[in-house]
Amino acid sequence: MEDITGILVDLFVLFAAAKAAGELFTRMRQPPVVGEVLVGVLIGPHALGLVGSPDGALIGLFGGDRQAAQEALDVVFDVIAELGVIILLFFVGLETRLGELLEVGRRATLVAVLGVAFPFALGFGLVWLTDPTDAADLEVEAAFVATAMVATSVGITARVLRDLGAIDTRESRIILGAAVVDDILALLLLAVVSGFGEDNFDALEVGLTALAAVVFVVFAALVGTRVIKQYSIHLERLQIRNSPFLVAMIVMLGLSALAGVIGLAAIIGAFLAGMILAEAKERFNLERQALPVYEFLVPFFFVIVGTKVDLDAFGDGGILGVALVITALAVVGKLVGGGLASAGLPARSAAIIGVGMVPRGEVGLVAASVGSGIGAITTDMFSVVVFMSVATTVLAPPALAWLHRGYPFEPREAPAEPVLPEL
Amino acid sequence: MEDITGILVDLFVLFAAAKAAGELFTRMRQPPVVGEVLVGVLIGPHALGLVGSPDGALIGLFGGDRQAAQEALDVVFDVIAELGVIILLFFVGLETRLGELLEVGRRATLVAVLGVAFPFALGFGLVWLTDPTDAADLEVEAAFVATAMVATSVGITARVLRDLGAIDTRESRIILGAAVVDDILALLLLAVVSGFGEDNFDALEVGLTALAAVVFVVFAALVGTRVIKQYSIHLERLQIRNSPFLVAMIVMLGLSALAGVIGLAAIIGAFLAGMILAEAKERFNLERQALPVYEFLVPFFFVIVGTKVDLDAFGDGGILGVALVITALAVVGKLVGGGLASAGLPARSAAIIGVGMVPRGEVGLVAASVGSGIGAITTDMFSVVVFMSVATTVLAPPALAWLHRGYPFEPREAPAEPVLPEL
Repeated sequence: MEDITGILVDLFVLFAAAKAAGELFTRMRQPPVVGEVLVGVLIGPHALGLVGSPDGALIGLFGGDRQAAQEALDVVFDVIAELGVIILLFFVGLETRLGELLEVGRRATLVAVLGVAFPFALGFGLVWLTDPTDAADLEVEAAFVATAMVATSVGITARVLRDLGAIDTRESRIILGAAVVDDILALLLLAVVSGFGEDNFDALEVGLTALAAVVFVVFAALVGTRVIKQYSIHLERLQIRNSPFLVAMIVMLGLSALAGVIGLAAIIGAFLAGMILAEAKERFNLERQALPVYEFLVPFFFVIVGTKVDLDAFGDGGILGVALVITALAVVGKLVGGGLASAGLPARSAAIIGVGMVPRGEVGLVAASVGSGIGAITTDMFSVVVFMSVATTVLAPPALAWLHRGYPFEPREAPAEPVLPEL
Repeated sequence: MEDITGILVDLFVLFAAAKAAGELFTRMRQPPVVGEVLVGVLIGPHALGLVGSPDGALIGLFGGDRQAAQEALDVVFDVIAELGVIILLFFVGLETRLGELLEVGRRATLVAVLGVAFPFALGFGLVWLTDPTDAADLEVEAAFVATAMVATSVGITARVLRDLGAIDTRESRIILGAAVVDDILALLLLAVVSGFGEDNFDALEVGLTALAAVVFVVFAALVGTRVIKQYSIHLERLQIRNSPFLVAMIVMLGLSALAGVIGLAAIIGAFLAGMILAEAKERFNLERQALPVYEFLVPFFFVIVGTKVDLDAFGDGGILGVALVITALAVVGKLVGGGLASAGLPARSAAIIGVGMVPRGEVGLVAASVGSGIGAITTDMFSVVVFMSVATTVLAPPALAWLHRGYPFEPREAPAEPVLPEL
């Protein structure tokens, strides 16, 4: 056992700060998740520095190599945050039925496609036309930045909708469905763009990745749901205490890992796991049991996202300007895409769907990391993408809360779905 | 966000394997925790290698430095395991009342003192008399090995006693109380021995460490308990959902981190946090809420302990012999110490107490790491200490289960405690 006291202190500070900020924001009638992200910025290594810097014992484990110790601490934070967001999406999946998702399937697919197309076009166009960071290969940098602007990170939206008590609405289901499709599209785009960037583009490989992703989602959703419906009763025959809950956690971790291996975001696997197990949740009371795990682990995700923000990178006014414009285009792209795809729905519904798709996160940061790793995007442009991810994440919750004010949700038990207008 | 898919896959394999082994051992009427540790040995990097080795993406994060990536992965495993054992001891604390612990205080202190003295004497004597690994400074090596044999790691025992439904017995309370005292004594011994090893022994520093540890434990136990009794009702006025549970988690992480900073094992802080909050647990239903977190995180501790075992180190028959003798002395030392301290109790109670103190763990490994770090103990002797830690950990659960077979526990509601025989 290594001396990890310093990390333990960090985890305590992260959790306590997240909860204190959540309390404060709740009292101010703001979404608690915004408080959690902002307090993360405040206590993070780039501001007060209360967390996120390796202590002497940790540096000692790496033979005095401070940079390696920092990287290791970042990995620890990322793993804890990832567990948090996996539980979050698992929980959202538990509150979603496959049937309900399929009912909004066409609409969700359209939201995803247009919500990918518009930000990509706007991002590519801006970078290509202005070349703000003097890139070595302008088309490739533009393509990477545009790809990073594509994928919605549905964690924030899902959390806010849950906090508002609106996770069951038709709009929420469209957002969740669109997020699954959107993630597959972003994966494909990243594969294609990385291929271009590396000069050895392999169409077959991209095709296989796409096929694997689609097969995974369809198989998990359709077959998994059926298996749980038919066989979950046998879980009661296991001898270990509380076996249905533990099997649920195994399925959650397993599908998350599998999604990651295929190249999708792990949270897509977690969401599918939750949706599959939704078929058995009443029998085993899964929601009540998963809730404490949710409340213990989920705050880590949001406060750790906050700690990654480095405001110093934007001391250069030019870069800050680029970051603001990219962020604006990222927001406008999703609003326009989501709005067009919501033709025929009330204006408020279209706005909720558009805003719900605005937050970017892991996938965008992964795209930027890949681009940065192969030298396709500059350090400045990497900071711009990080800024865009965090800014869109911070903007969406208050907007979503405002859009839901006075909005009469349809309760889950509503007898009939309104008929979808033909698209 | 870094690419941590490989770590996510490891966590899935660890959890699924732990639960499968737990199920198998439960069906074989063995303690599930033994299955969890043994399956960890099996899947760990020293045997099948299914977990615990960094993948290409992780090595890439460290610029191709495989050793740094391995160290980082070890740190991640240690943090997850530590969260697990913290939850475990918190839970055990929740099931313990300060008043009940104080009732067995004198007996527990005696068990701790004799249970430290005997293993230390036996371990020091053996190494000093035989010099099995040709040490540079024999007295110092002997002192480090002896110190590593001192501290009980109460996690395993607590888990087994909980699984047996015997956490409320008088014997269990003596073991828990002795573990707290024992940890303080081990901390002091380590401070003294490290001082000798470094040739700049500072009695004042050792004294201050001792004072801080005692003040921490007494303050947390007495003042904390009183504060929670009087003021916990105000927790209901917080606005965030489920605030009492979240405050409990904050106290747990905080006291664990504080114990670590003082130099005690973090789990002592977690145990104290649980004991403090036991005063409010009925009002807020803390046990029911903490249970899912327990069931999700605790198995990681035991399976990860298993992954650390490297059986290859004992291909050399001589080292294996030393390891077996040291392990035997570590067991005998606690049995004799616990047995003598239990004079006046029934033989079976004395045996339960002695066996319950047998498992060594973190603190022993920390002592060995410190000794290894300053060159006071050889690599072979380090492997011996690891072997002793794991072997004592694997031996205790079946013995405890066997000792409880057909043993009539006193239920918690027993009206009167039998009067302690004068010691």
